[in-house]
Amino acid sequence: MQKNDLELLINYISKLPSVGKRSAKRIALHLLKNKENLMFPLAKAITDTAQNIKKCSECGNYDISEICNICSNEKRNHEQVCVVENVEDLWAIERGNIYNGVYHILGGALSAIDGISPDDLNLKTLLAKIQAGKVKEVILATNATIEGQTTAHFVSGKLRQYNVKISRLAFGIPLGGELDYLDEGTLLTALETRREL
Amino acid sequence: MQKNDLELLINYISKLPSVGKRSAKRIALHLLKNKENLMFPLAKAITDTAQNIKKCSECGNYDISEICNICSNEKRNHEQVCVVENVEDLWAIERGNIYNGVYHILGGALSAIDGISPDDLNLKTLLAKIQAGKVKEVILATNATIEGQTTAHFVSGKLRQYNVKISRLAFGIPLGGELDYLDEGTLLTALETRREL
Repeated sequence: MQKNDLELLINYISKLPSVGKRSAKRIALHLLKNKENLMFPLAKAITDTAQNIKKCSECGNYDISEICNICSNEKRNHEQVCVVENVEDLWAIERGNIYNGVYHILGGALSAIDGISPDDLNLKTLLAKIQAGKVKEVILATNATIEGQTTAHFVSGKLRQYNVKISRLAFGIPLGGELDYLDEGTLLTALETRREL
Repeated sequence: MQKNDLELLINYISKLPSVGKRSAKRIALHLLKNKENLMFPLAKAITDTAQNIKKCSECGNYDISEICNICSNEKRNHEQVCVVENVEDLWAIERGNIYNGVYHILGGALSAIDGISPDDLNLKTLLAKIQAGKVKEVILATNATIEGQTTAHFVSGKLRQYNVKISRLAFGIPLGGELDYLDEGTLLTALETRREL
């Protein structure tokens, strides 16, 4: 096995999420076979992104500007704030093109195992906005995991004292879902929150 | 969705083997969260590797020197050449620490579908070595796929005219393999090439 740049590169690649040692080697070889059209551009893209992308000081989203393109978009409803755990959750909602409000990224969910406590959640700018009376509704869109539920509970507790509507994404059977394949928790929730037709 | 460096980066990452669009996003976010200890070092490692790693002019292996550390190692047996399809195959054999000869990398296998013809295989330096009488045995270690078998057949035909021993890796039941889970082709080969005890 070579002890050189290549080994170092494979080592770094194998630290990426969902990439193991074997995939890392395959990726490194693939890069070496495509130096001009992939390897150099990729290195440049990584450096450019590392240098240019900032966290939006309002919501925590990533963008090239100090205020992200969602927070600075005047056509969006700034009175409606969707609270999510991470940037990928914001992207998931944006992908659907189903929401016209703005976002607030907590930067994680409360978790005893991962050692994320209330102090680690980014709530400051959200509370400031609410205290300034700029927000009418907060939509809690944390994940449907234990951590996400705990976080939603904690955040709603924090916001209860303000004059702001608090809502939570609905739980139930996903569209196209077959009852036979769903867990009992989902079925129970779907049954309990059933709606009259 | 943002249209900027980040999107470009995700696009490049998604072109890596076994990385899809969704993993690419996860990887990009992971990089942004670990700028100093992963993102910048990775970009540097990619650039360094692209600039410094060369193909060995003897065997086709990747290394920082013109002649790779295997071909330039005088302790290895240069009369025994193991012919493999790709660098990853060389690495697989080296990993086992089971072989003390040198290698020759064909750079692929004959394949009508992928359009790899005999002219695309790197055979020149191997033939030159054999013609110079430096090689006693050529071990064909191409994969046990249709393409690998065809390639082994083609290469052995090319070498038949020279005074050199030609061998092929043995086929059979992998160690720890259970007969019930093996395909018939492997079983047939194992039966036909059975050895007396």
